[in-house]
Amino acid sequence: MPDSVTPPDAYPVSERNKVRRLHERGRYDKESVHAILDAAMVCHIAYVIDGQPYCTPTAFWREGEHLYWHGSSASRMLRSQKGGVPVCLTVTHLDSLVLARCGFNHSVDYRSAMCFGTARVVDDPAAKSRALDAMIDRFYPGRNAELRPSTAQELKATTVIGMEIEQASGKIRSKGVADEEEDYALPIYATRFPVTQVIGAAEPCPRMPEGVPFPEGLAGFTPGRRLDELMLESYRTTYGKE
Amino acid sequence: MPDSVTPPDAYPVSERNKVRRLHERGRYDKESVHAILDAAMVCHIAYVIDGQPYCTPTAFWREGEHLYWHGSSASRMLRSQKGGVPVCLTVTHLDSLVLARCGFNHSVDYRSAMCFGTARVVDDPAAKSRALDAMIDRFYPGRNAELRPSTAQELKATTVIGMEIEQASGKIRSKGVADEEEDYALPIYATRFPVTQVIGAAEPCPRMPEGVPFPEGLAGFTPGRRLDELMLESYRTTYGKE
Repeated sequence: MPDSVTPPDAYPVSERNKVRRLHERGRYDKESVHAILDAAMVCHIAYVIDGQPYCTPTAFWREGEHLYWHGSSASRMLRSQKGGVPVCLTVTHLDSLVLARCGFNHSVDYRSAMCFGTARVVDDPAAKSRALDAMIDRFYPGRNAELRPSTAQELKATTVIGMEIEQASGKIRSKGVADEEEDYALPIYATRFPVTQVIGAAEPCPRMPEGVPFPEGLAGFTPGRRLDELMLESYRTTYGKE
Repeated sequence: MPDSVTPPDAYPVSERNKVRRLHERGRYDKESVHAILDAAMVCHIAYVIDGQPYCTPTAFWREGEHLYWHGSSASRMLRSQKGGVPVCLTVTHLDSLVLARCGFNHSVDYRSAMCFGTARVVDDPAAKSRALDAMIDRFYPGRNAELRPSTAQELKATTVIGMEIEQASGKIRSKGVADEEEDYALPIYATRFPVTQVIGAAEPCPRMPEGVPFPEGLAGFTPGRRLDELMLESYRTTYGKE
């Protein structure tokens, strides 16, 4: 558990979330951690069943200090978490490949966040329905109001899981090539290749009736747009800047 | 443990790696799983320390039925794994956003692979040195021969972890929009947005001496190139097609 006084805008630091390796890259302030989370659609969640770790990718979203994700009620991960189980939810954005002058200094620029908490099923039907609506709008602003409403059967077939962020840490590397001082003079090609995740042009469903307009809420979904910027923009449109 | 006869080109299926949710998306043949792994640079690894799950992103690579990753000898993850511990290594490629006519059918197209095994430190100095060279060449063909050789201190400061793939499963969704038959006639905009991870133009280190040429092995690293295609190409250049 936290072993020191924590400012209200930061996560408590303990053995669990302390960034050990290259600790100058560590971030514990909520603003930095939230910015990494809110720029993502997909996370990876670690959980344990009978001593065996599992790592499952899933879409997720944040509301304040809570994180939510969902899935079929049949999925192993969600069934195992009904009682409330410890999880670690991690988001990673790969920002560049870093090719240095020796193997040891090869690296990548990245932003990652690890969040620790206890995952629990959102059982209350109203809370569950509201959460699923929020999930759609968080990714695609205003979209939920345009959709065919969910049926009771669809709601029943979906499990929503939530957790409060008990502790978290962010880790950021953004310095590109960094070599040993004596290596810079060597005749070795060293470079950074930026990496981005982008969307392409919409591929509309061919079975739409004629004349269905492109939704206003998707105005930002233009070809070549960075997914991290788009997700952060969608988040702030739906939840406000905080 | 595996409960049925497994063909040599497939992973044994048991409770641990059986794809339960939407099982028609599951793949257990090695060719499918390897193709997902070899198109990636970064994975997420789940492991357990004192009952607490952790999910750590890291670069990794495959050699036959073994997976390798590395890091500073100081890192918590690697220290905890010295004795040989169960891990789950997961790779995820996000291929599209799928916006359907109801919330329930919103989805993403993706390719993911989960690999189960026992992680162990590669202690033998020669094996460790060879593995680190292979890691560089796997991402950047031929690059290792162009670099300043690693020092004994650098090797000492790096831990290499390896695991044999005991079991694995792949999961692929690639069908774009799929709605309930009665929903297609609704005046709701439905679309797929392709998602790709791409590299940008090289940003050469400004401290290179004049006249250092762009390496031949990086000929495929052109602006706009998909990282998954590039990684698969690099893999096959270095290790062969198999």
